Amino acid sequence: MQTLTLAALAEALGATLRGPGDTVITGLGTLKAATGEQLAFLANPRYRSQLAETTAGAVLCTAADAEHAPGAVLVVDDPYQAFARASHWFDRAPRPAAGIHPRAVVSELAQVHPSASIGANAVIEDGVTIGADVVIMPGCFIGAGSSLAEGVRLWPNVTIYHGVKIGPGTIIHAGSVVGADGFGFAFSAGQWHKVAQVGGVSIGAGVEIGANVTIDRGAIDDTLIGDGVILDDQVHLGHNVVVGDHTAMAGKVGVSGSTRIGRHCLLGGAVGVAGHLDIADGVTVLGMTLVSRSLTERGVYGSALPADRQDRWQRNAARFRHLDELYRRVRTLEKGRRDGD
Amino acid sequence: MQTLTLAALAEALGATLRGPGDTVITGLGTLKAATGEQLAFLANPRYRSQLAETTAGAVLCTAADAEHAPGAVLVVDDPYQAFARASHWFDRAPRPAAGIHPRAVVSELAQVHPSASIGANAVIEDGVTIGADVVIMPGCFIGAGSSLAEGVRLWPNVTIYHGVKIGPGTIIHAGSVVGADGFGFAFSAGQWHKVAQVGGVSIGAGVEIGANVTIDRGAIDDTLIGDGVILDDQVHLGHNVVVGDHTAMAGKVGVSGSTRIGRHCLLGGAVGVAGHLDIADGVTVLGMTLVSRSLTERGVYGSALPADRQDRWQRNAARFRHLDELYRRVRTLEKGRRDGD
Amino acid sequence: MQTLTLAALAEALGATLRGPGDTVITGLGTLKAATGEQLAFLANPRYRSQLAETTAGAVLCTAADAEHAPGAVLVVDDPYQAFARASHWFDRAPRPAAGIHPRAVVSELAQVHPSASIGANAVIEDGVTIGADVVIMPGCFIGAGSSLAEGVRLWPNVTIYHGVKIGPGTIIHAGSVVGADGFGFAFSAGQWHKVAQVGGVSIGAGVEIGANVTIDRGAIDDTLIGDGVILDDQVHLGHNVVVGDHTAMAGKVGVSGSTRIGRHCLLGGAVGVAGHLDIADGVTVLGMTLVSRSLTERGVYGSALPADRQDRWQRNAARFRHLDELYRRVRTLEKGRRDGD
Repeated sequence: MQTLTLAALAEALGATLRGPGDTVITGLGTLKAATGEQLAFLANPRYRSQLAETTAGAVLCTAADAEHAPGAVLVVDDPYQAFARASHWFDRAPRPAAGIHPRAVVSELAQVHPSASIGANAVIEDGVTIGADVVIMPGCFIGAGSSLAEGVRLWPNVTIYHGVKIGPGTIIHAGSVVGADGFGFAFSAGQWHKVAQVGGVSIGAGVEIGANVTIDRGAIDDTLIGDGVILDDQVHLGHNVVVGDHTAMAGKVGVSGSTRIGRHCLLGGAVGVAGHLDIADGVTVLGMTLVSRSLTERGVYGSALPADRQDRWQRNAARFRHLDELYRRVRTLEKGRRDGD
Repeated sequence: MQTLTLAALAEALGATLRGPGDTVITGLGTLKAATGEQLAFLANPRYRSQLAETTAGAVLCTAADAEHAPGAVLVVDDPYQAFARASHWFDRAPRPAAGIHPRAVVSELAQVHPSASIGANAVIEDGVTIGADVVIMPGCFIGAGSSLAEGVRLWPNVTIYHGVKIGPGTIIHAGSVVGADGFGFAFSAGQWHKVAQVGGVSIGAGVEIGANVTIDRGAIDDTLIGDGVILDDQVHLGHNVVVGDHTAMAGKVGVSGSTRIGRHCLLGGAVGVAGHLDIADGVTVLGMTLVSRSLTERGVYGSALPADRQDRWQRNAARFRHLDELYRRVRTLEKGRRDGD
Repeated sequence: MQTLTLAALAEALGATLRGPGDTVITGLGTLKAATGEQLAFLANPRYRSQLAETTAGAVLCTAADAEHAPGAVLVVDDPYQAFARASHWFDRAPRPAAGIHPRAVVSELAQVHPSASIGANAVIEDGVTIGADVVIMPGCFIGAGSSLAEGVRLWPNVTIYHGVKIGPGTIIHAGSVVGADGFGFAFSAGQWHKVAQVGGVSIGAGVEIGANVTIDRGAIDDTLIGDGVILDDQVHLGHNVVVGDHTAMAGKVGVSGSTRIGRHCLLGGAVGVAGHLDIADGVTVLGMTLVSRSLTERGVYGSALPADRQDRWQRNAARFRHLDELYRRVRTLEKGRRDGD
């Protein structure tokens, strides 16, 4: 665990320190619960009321908020961004040592950089390439011919099929599966006939993929994930989906096959996107929305109705079944009025 | 496999037996299919019509229903609760033997109770504490410093990250991931910057977690799951979610970060709850509902429209796009009428 | 990697070749990107415009489309079905060798056919039966007494609990869990009491199950999946669900306990089906629909509203909360008109 003085933190973050430079910070805390040895931050206005009472050793905040802090502050323009940087200095996530665990199973036909860490029970097949500083944790499987560029980290029990390329610095959390067969079947004579999925998956640099995500391999060409994409847990991307750079998807988003999502899009939790669509750059989709047509213009989109009391929701839902009829009745009334009826 | 006489069952359950005490029961069956050696139950009125024809060796039911049973009955006030108890006596799930499998990989810096069972290819990192009678099945990973209290059971291929606490008697099914990084990123200069997730996860006693569930670690403080919580398969809980005691979530529920769910809540299948909300104790949310605001009063809530024939649904959905306009047209008609128009 | 001449392909597919029989095909390509050594196909009219410009070595298409192809064509009645067959000849997915990997853990009480392939770190418990040509990839777990018929393939890190039967030729992708406990609890005295799930799971022949799917074991009887069923990634089937032959479910579908789905049904992405329902044969449900009542007639059903611009969606959603009231106001207007008011 790292310890840093406030003076050192201020210098590293380019922050203006108001308070004693020799205070030692040993970790992170919330405004509400931080101790005198912890660093807190204020970015979301929702928590501004907690500032006056905080017992944090120091608070990262803007100049405007700094006025109201009871103790030391590190003044910055973008407190959350500064906190993002500082957070890594106090992260206690263990860093596995370099080398191949004696209980890993690594093909003689794989190339593993000596600085990489291969955990117990990891299985690495023929023709795999593992770059410098890669961390593969226990129970992961890397299929034949796949490549992991430098600095990739796979948490435990991740499955990478054959023919998958992962760019530098990409992180994949536990239980995720990259490169399983796309859902491709021809229906004939009353049965489904599997179409072999011969494409692969190509993932860019600096991508973060949550836990239990599924990204299917392409039917013919590769499924493509751009640089800097962030995917929360349980996202599903079908075969030949294309995701543009720096797009973010919250938990449980599903995107069907062959859909192209632009750059800098934001998809809220459990959004569903149908197949063969085009979503423009900069599109934001609110949680639980169904996207069943292409969205060709930047903007914010929604479709899910919000929770209501059961009695009212049931009455309204029952009326919804007759909405078209209601519309016609209103038209009749309007016509009658126009006719002087 | 256990065998019990009806007399023994009646005594153990505090039931009134009507029928021969020496009938031997060897297992469980449904009213429709149970054999003369199997115990059935009637709790859901939907299945009452099957009672008269049952060939079960005995039926757990209320005194009122007992009148209509063709054979032996065990009369109780709450048949489903009694069945829940009896079910465990006939469960055939294997119970792994105590001890560490020679193919497990256990750190010398971990403390494992001698009565615990550690399966093949399980990996247990430094500083982990494993209590009495814990069962860790093959392929599980337990990260540094995590603790599993007595009687915890992990089914195969579960991943527990570092810094996770699991209370006594909690069960976690296969493929679930506890403690992966929360979805915390600061957006700056066109890119997402990861915020290290330095909190942990704390899970109470007697919790049941289904298969392929994801529960993320906290950003700063811990994600908190109370006692007696039950989570079905593929539930997702974001960072710093708090779930109150004895709350139940059906399959595929998703809860976004920092939301607090009360005690004794019921969330139906695929419900989605946005982040930073408060859900009161005793709230029930119907399946596939979007909860986008705090629900501060106990009660039942819904939002999803139910399935309808495609032609009608399409016509109504098209009208929905103009609902606000329709509302205004009705107001115009009302105004005209009031004006004696 | 296989290579085939166009003449050989035409014969194997029963296709009419228009072009040089000695052209060698080494792989598959899309109409847009295929090289002169690759086979493409045209089935979806959406891609017809790409035909004239294709540089593919040959195109599988109908006689009508063949007129517009610039090069060699293989004329068939059903191009996608023919492509499905041909795709397997060019599939590069590695085929593991027969035999038990020295790092697999196989019970002496299991029966493994000599032609089966058991990967590293696979764990096979007592009483398991593994048929001819089965492939079990690394990290899989097969619980006591389960049986895998000939030709079953499990991709890595699949968990099969005890008492599961899997029919011949069935494929299960990575991270899926079959046979975890159903979500069965009795509520009494303020707490949930677990009901032991003593049923199993029975899966038919030629089934394909995607990645990170969960299929729970039955409470008493088995959960049943018919022949030729195809399930995409992250599908969830609760305890005692019955799925009829040749039914297809897209990604993220959830089906609650004891529901029976007919034969030849199609469930779109993220559809949710409540428990204890009956869905007739031949039912199609559009993506993200909530099915909360039985659907007793073949046909197409939907319920989800499609994405709209945020401003319009918000206004309409706000009006929806008063839809029943609007309906009453229209009725009042109608009554006034009838009364000559």
